[in-house]
Amino acid sequence: MSLSEFQLIERFFAGLGAARADVRLGHGDDAALVDCGGATLALAVDTLIEGVHFPADAPAASIGHKLLAVNLSDLAAMGAEPAWALLALTLPTVDEARLAAIREGLDALASRHGLALIGGDTTRGESLVASLFVAGHAGEDALRRDGAQPGDWVWVSGAPGEAAAGLALWQGGARDGPGVAQLLRRLHWPEPRVALGRGLRGVASAAVDVSDGVVADAGHLAHRSGVALTIRAADLPLSPALTACAGERAMEYALAGGDDYELLFTAPEAATEAVRRAADAAGVTVRPVGVVAAGRAEVTVIDADGAPMKVVRGGYRHFDGEGGGR
Amino acid sequence: MSLSEFQLIERFFAGLGAARADVRLGHGDDAALVDCGGATLALAVDTLIEGVHFPADAPAASIGHKLLAVNLSDLAAMGAEPAWALLALTLPTVDEARLAAIREGLDALASRHGLALIGGDTTRGESLVASLFVAGHAGEDALRRDGAQPGDWVWVSGAPGEAAAGLALWQGGARDGPGVAQLLRRLHWPEPRVALGRGLRGVASAAVDVSDGVVADAGHLAHRSGVALTIRAADLPLSPALTACAGERAMEYALAGGDDYELLFTAPEAATEAVRRAADAAGVTVRPVGVVAAGRAEVTVIDADGAPMKVVRGGYRHFDGEGGGR
Repeated sequence: MSLSEFQLIERFFAGLGAARADVRLGHGDDAALVDCGGATLALAVDTLIEGVHFPADAPAASIGHKLLAVNLSDLAAMGAEPAWALLALTLPTVDEARLAAIREGLDALASRHGLALIGGDTTRGESLVASLFVAGHAGEDALRRDGAQPGDWVWVSGAPGEAAAGLALWQGGARDGPGVAQLLRRLHWPEPRVALGRGLRGVASAAVDVSDGVVADAGHLAHRSGVALTIRAADLPLSPALTACAGERAMEYALAGGDDYELLFTAPEAATEAVRRAADAAGVTVRPVGVVAAGRAEVTVIDADGAPMKVVRGGYRHFDGEGGGR
Repeated sequence: MSLSEFQLIERFFAGLGAARADVRLGHGDDAALVDCGGATLALAVDTLIEGVHFPADAPAASIGHKLLAVNLSDLAAMGAEPAWALLALTLPTVDEARLAAIREGLDALASRHGLALIGGDTTRGESLVASLFVAGHAGEDALRRDGAQPGDWVWVSGAPGEAAAGLALWQGGARDGPGVAQLLRRLHWPEPRVALGRGLRGVASAAVDVSDGVVADAGHLAHRSGVALTIRAADLPLSPALTACAGERAMEYALAGGDDYELLFTAPEAATEAVRRAADAAGVTVRPVGVVAAGRAEVTVIDADGAPMKVVRGGYRHFDGEGGGR
């Protein structure tokens, strides 16, 4: 059995129920888009499971933070402004101190993004499973995965790979040392690029959040847009912390490590200055790392000499035994 | 530790994040209400866990049906019209036949109510956990739990108790026999009272869906409205199937059995004809079963002589060891 998460969802649950004229975009992007009373809403849901999406010994407050962050990252990839959330929480036991810390992490990030938690359902199960549903305001110019055009540049925000390197460190017992704190912060406390996504509306031609890894998520964008993407590995930013901690594996993390929640997006070359202005306004670094071309919907990674590279890990997928982040 | 599900949610997660002017109603009702564009949306989430909210050997299609039904029931209690849903599904294994049946059950009910499934997240976990988020269109006159007034009549739709009696039969191995099929249908294939809820907008003063049991849910309505409710046990409809199968325990099921997903609502006596018209239009039977009075927010059940009765089971609550339905 080698169905990936994505194939599973698409195969079994896409297009279910009624066809509604107010659904602008259903399955297959970071969020769905619907018309509501003159507004356009982006709706998304993401689940975190203890031991799968975060280490069981992760700081409790970071669990609440990360649960919201991964969902806000979906809204960011649509250029949407966060509004409301509902929480479905399944718990094996009631640990009041841990719950209070989870709440604290969620609350701080929600307040910072102007989001209100307005409902939920709490149930008892065998392990901690937390699903968060988020809704945000997008517009006619919401970002999507399917708008990349041949000739566009491919951009990435921040320094991908740090979270996956942080996970390896955490699992190896590292808690301190040069660069370690930064990588662990990126693992446990990812910062969704909401302001950048909002600023890229009307500027970027397509966007996806980097949850599965740069190459894997670039693949989702290529697939949805029906274009070929080339990523220049030498242009990927490798942070000093990443190179210090991961050594010769730094590039592997940058290309294939998941869980960074950066944005990967495309924009016409003529929009380069607008991209930089949006990034500056959001306080986020961005780098052009590749180009879009007509051709088969796939991703090619090339080295500094322009030779194709083999990417070791293809990004994490549930159910098919590949390792990695989320 | 005896925190109930409700106390847990209210204690730890109510009021989290930003205060937003577009939130009309947050935690504590069947759904939240928010302003969106010029519309009012009702948003709700409910989780079903295998072995907790449905038997592991329940027909697979009924799992998909019930997952949506319990959520549509929340929308029904607000008088909202279903629009969109997102599914967070956690699975221990990929059983394609079972997933296809779950999908089929979900699809049929969604299509019947004009609802589109527009997104989701599928993850692997230790047991089947399914959380569904639903959104529907309500209005300025959305039904809520907090509008009951002294002098109002208390109404209930359908014949509560059948689902809980069906669960006892199912667990006892009964699959056929006089009345059994009907009770099992009510257990596995509950019918959310969406049309009734919609018809009661502008007619009923308050409403709640019967998921925890008539007395328990009447208690939620009493608490939110700040009024005393009296339920006349002799006026509760006991179906022939229920009395045939449950014998002398029929009344206990009717008062305290959960999982029926009927509506319990209040309305001024002057609205009696309007209530009956709404029920007729929805094709649902309704019965006046009690009255609202000023006083302490609690529920009193009286027998045919007007003497207070003790209700054996107070409705199911997670984490505190009480048995029962959902």
